Amino acid sequence: MVRARPDVSGLIERARDGQPRAVARLISLVEDAHPSLREVAAGLMPYTGGARIIGLTGPPGVGKSTSTSVLLTALRGQGLRVGVLAIDPTSPFSGGALLGDRIRMTEHATDPGVFIRSMATRGHLGGLAWATPQAVRVLDAAGFDVVLIETVGVGQSEVDIVELADTTVVLLAPGMGDGVQAAKAGILEAADVFVVNKADRDGTDVLVRDLRHAISLAHREVPAGAWRRPIVRTVASRGEGVDELVRVLGEHHDWLAAHGELARRRGARAASEIEAIAVRRIRSELVDVHGAGLPELAERVVGRALDPYAAADVLLETLRDRRSLPDV
Amino acid sequence: MVRARPDVSGLIERARDGQPRAVARLISLVEDAHPSLREVAAGLMPYTGGARIIGLTGPPGVGKSTSTSVLLTALRGQGLRVGVLAIDPTSPFSGGALLGDRIRMTEHATDPGVFIRSMATRGHLGGLAWATPQAVRVLDAAGFDVVLIETVGVGQSEVDIVELADTTVVLLAPGMGDGVQAAKAGILEAADVFVVNKADRDGTDVLVRDLRHAISLAHREVPAGAWRRPIVRTVASRGEGVDELVRVLGEHHDWLAAHGELARRRGARAASEIEAIAVRRIRSELVDVHGAGLPELAERVVGRALDPYAAADVLLETLRDRRSLPDV
Repeated sequence: MVRARPDVSGLIERARDGQPRAVARLISLVEDAHPSLREVAAGLMPYTGGARIIGLTGPPGVGKSTSTSVLLTALRGQGLRVGVLAIDPTSPFSGGALLGDRIRMTEHATDPGVFIRSMATRGHLGGLAWATPQAVRVLDAAGFDVVLIETVGVGQSEVDIVELADTTVVLLAPGMGDGVQAAKAGILEAADVFVVNKADRDGTDVLVRDLRHAISLAHREVPAGAWRRPIVRTVASRGEGVDELVRVLGEHHDWLAAHGELARRRGARAASEIEAIAVRRIRSELVDVHGAGLPELAERVVGRALDPYAAADVLLETLRDRRSLPDV
Repeated sequence: MVRARPDVSGLIERARDGQPRAVARLISLVEDAHPSLREVAAGLMPYTGGARIIGLTGPPGVGKSTSTSVLLTALRGQGLRVGVLAIDPTSPFSGGALLGDRIRMTEHATDPGVFIRSMATRGHLGGLAWATPQAVRVLDAAGFDVVLIETVGVGQSEVDIVELADTTVVLLAPGMGDGVQAAKAGILEAADVFVVNKADRDGTDVLVRDLRHAISLAHREVPAGAWRRPIVRTVASRGEGVDELVRVLGEHHDWLAAHGELARRRGARAASEIEAIAVRRIRSELVDVHGAGLPELAERVVGRALDPYAAADVLLETLRDRRSLPDV
């Protein structure tokens, strides 16, 4: 089947005009690594840089979806246009879209100042790093004032959200395991702002105290003028503490701008993105079955005829000899 | 300071002789990407392939450390030599070693048939993928019959454990969030064996039922003869259900061998490992500040003078022109 090449500049124009279907189509082109991806990326660039990008992360069950939803409502109440990207792991069980579906069922569904999209992560290495910055850029160029990125998961994925967002919010809740467990999961150092959600539950005071202690330990070596990471208590299901969260997020944004940190973070983000695109291209070359012979090399490693470093040598030599890389 | 080049073949000999200090030193060489890494990798190869590799994963607080410890005791009771790799995210709060320290405090500390090592994950992209297979290979070559790999975390990291292990055990517990939450976290499809730990708690029956339902949905399209993923109930803190877990793990190992799946998984693992080594080398080239100019390119992207795809083009062209890659 021959499909017509999408009218990218028309789509970008309509997205900037506030048409949600054009926004959705552009994000799909990005997610699907459509041949017009590069045209999309180049076309969006002049209109980007205006949006505040806020990441929300934390362990499953902590109330991220609810928090995202009430934060969205509060920011809308200030007249801001808000885009939401919910990042789900690809899962045959969840269909990768439970989260987004749940949010879509809320009152925001018919509001033209809101755009919500559930994104699947594509593979484990650099999938999020590769497609999400472009999706953020679509929303940024479409004139959304704030982009909220919600990610499931703790562990290695939070590093990505740090690289994606201007401000990273880490949500915790009492009864999800103690503070040490949270530290083990490696999410503490990712935070600009902590939210202790479900703060009407037993254990809240202990969690806040443990968190304060952990923060003060980490801040020992932090210079004066540095951002002191606040802890906001919320009961998102009742909207409690959300105004305070909005205030703190505004403060952090002002701090970023005043200290040159916004530019620094965006520079680091661009570097990661360029690197992820480059690595992705090289990877697609490496796994090409007609190319460097990865399956055959793997078989020789299993058979103990070759160690994996020697196999990588062969692979890279093939790549160098070819000097060709596929598009995207 | 000039350090003597380590005597790699001597270390490998002593490791195979059962000397834990030699094993520890070899893993350190691997973790630190020591210049002798390639010599280590090549030297280990002839002695590998004998160990059963079992991964344990699941959300924080589910009892992974305790389960690993009791499983270790049970396998030791069968006369098997057991190595444990505990993968922690690098964290200034946790020091990346809480988990290992806790395990080390148990009764296994003085048993020469047990080797326990806490590994930090090195960066977010491919860190685990790159160093851990070599650490597994050290234990394998040193004659451990079973290698247990315990990983913190849900989200994207479980994909790595699937690639590392012959058998992946996913632990859940009642009261950690419902089955849907677990599905969202994307850990269900990673499992060969499910463990519902803390099975003396309320909510166990509901969790097991939800899990059965999810498994039966996923198995609809699975051909006859496929592995039907069992659910084992345990109370690891009292050792309950652990004999059953050992039995099920043995069944899975037999099934893997009988269906050619062990060779297939090990082939896929070797391919991932080769790819990770190759990508790591290319990445180290890409971020080299004296080289391809990534910081400058990032600045141009932030300034909207260049889109990230065009920047990646420049980066890759620089790499191609150079045709040189650093060692490791």
